[in-house]
Amino acid sequence: MQFNLISDLDVHSRIDLNDRGVHYGDGLFETMLLHNGEIKYWNNHYSRLQSSAVKLKINCPEKAWFDNKFKPYIALNKTLILKVLLNRGTGGRGLHLPEELSSNVLILQYEYKIPDKIQVVSAITSSILLPINRNLAGLKHLNRLDYILASEDLTRFPDANEAILLDHDGYVIEGIINNLFYATGDDIYTPSLETSGVDGIMRGLIIEKLLEGNRKVNITRFKINDLLNAGECFMCNSVQGIRPITQIDNTHFKTGPLTQSLLKKFSVHAS
Amino acid sequence: MQFNLISDLDVHSRIDLNDRGVHYGDGLFETMLLHNGEIKYWNNHYSRLQSSAVKLKINCPEKAWFDNKFKPYIALNKTLILKVLLNRGTGGRGLHLPEELSSNVLILQYEYKIPDKIQVVSAITSSILLPINRNLAGLKHLNRLDYILASEDLTRFPDANEAILLDHDGYVIEGIINNLFYATGDDIYTPSLETSGVDGIMRGLIIEKLLEGNRKVNITRFKINDLLNAGECFMCNSVQGIRPITQIDNTHFKTGPLTQSLLKKFSVHAS
Repeated sequence: MQFNLISDLDVHSRIDLNDRGVHYGDGLFETMLLHNGEIKYWNNHYSRLQSSAVKLKINCPEKAWFDNKFKPYIALNKTLILKVLLNRGTGGRGLHLPEELSSNVLILQYEYKIPDKIQVVSAITSSILLPINRNLAGLKHLNRLDYILASEDLTRFPDANEAILLDHDGYVIEGIINNLFYATGDDIYTPSLETSGVDGIMRGLIIEKLLEGNRKVNITRFKINDLLNAGECFMCNSVQGIRPITQIDNTHFKTGPLTQSLLKKFSVHAS
Repeated sequence: MQFNLISDLDVHSRIDLNDRGVHYGDGLFETMLLHNGEIKYWNNHYSRLQSSAVKLKINCPEKAWFDNKFKPYIALNKTLILKVLLNRGTGGRGLHLPEELSSNVLILQYEYKIPDKIQVVSAITSSILLPINRNLAGLKHLNRLDYILASEDLTRFPDANEAILLDHDGYVIEGIINNLFYATGDDIYTPSLETSGVDGIMRGLIIEKLLEGNRKVNITRFKINDLLNAGECFMCNSVQGIRPITQIDNTHFKTGPLTQSLLKKFSVHAS
């Protein structure tokens, strides 16, 4: 199986005009932090990419292939965001899926500075609703127009830096680039992602960590009022780690004991 | 306002590695038939592209800009499919939408031969359900993964050339690259596209033509059994025109009087 590498370290890299990512968003991506010579949670990111590719029947390189391609990025000796896009390849039109396609793999770097102190989230509830879509729920795929619309909508609120996204049935799903948790007393909740949303790496790590500590997490459907009545809540992703939510619309929150303890475990400053 | 043309007639045309189409499917497209020096229904295609771009807040060139860019394609003096992709431009990452973006416009040609005789549709009912998504319903946007999955699923049925797509609530929406109509007696039906599907150019032309002839079209929600019990049914798109449906799963259909009369009006052979 052949794979086409398109790397921003190679000035000759080109995206074909008939690339299936360009035409259909026919692929997946991962966004990762490269810091101190290590791609954080790379095992988890690869595992999600690989299993998602199986679901979409996209050919995915072995882990060692990526390890090899990452070497020149690691050799830059910088703190960077590495973005990997995997799409089904080049060619085919309309109904016609070519029999054998060589996937295209883009590897791109973005400058990043790890913040000096803990960042907090001030969110609004978005008027953009996420689709109900069991085909794609959980996957970090390239069909991101709904999230672009939510980003655009968020610019109306200059004091907010994230949005709470509900689905078309009115259930809370996630943020634009974060998953979310809330706790009330000893009860911990995070949205079910069976019909919408992205199954985030940090979300998975947090659930795992809590289960190890014999803390049960309710992975369930809930409404915005449940969240607004929470004792504490936070957002998370694999680049920024955990960020306490201090405000949603006109409701204010304090950073509670669950958030505090997870901040210690998963702080990017700690690494 | 600047626009970046990426044309397959220009060997120097390049898609930037940070093109927002590549990363997010952040754009729209139109697929058109160029035949006898004329881009069929171009007024309608432009009107849809322009109004869809307004909804997504993507900058769209004036019609005259496209007219100018189409000239070298028309000068080829061939029958072609012209595909136009309009995306939000290059740049921005994650939450951050750059303030001012120059949209990217791809113009691509594909060889096409108009069939000698009327083509028919033999369809299966797809197991891939379309999302419920009021943000994007009706738009011909670049987030097409669900349709790719339906195409892939269709390959399991070598005798079928289209699929009937239902939404997550079980209502009939369309085919993979076609809209659909059915009739029972004098009653004509086509699916409502308020929560899913593509508002096709040919669908619009047919509704308009029927209204001109004082025929009412019921734009409504219906289930697969309503379609299977139809007197006649057909599919349509702006490149292939109208195609009678002869079979859906194990149900067979005859080409009825409505389909016959519309075939006369909208045959690509007639033009």
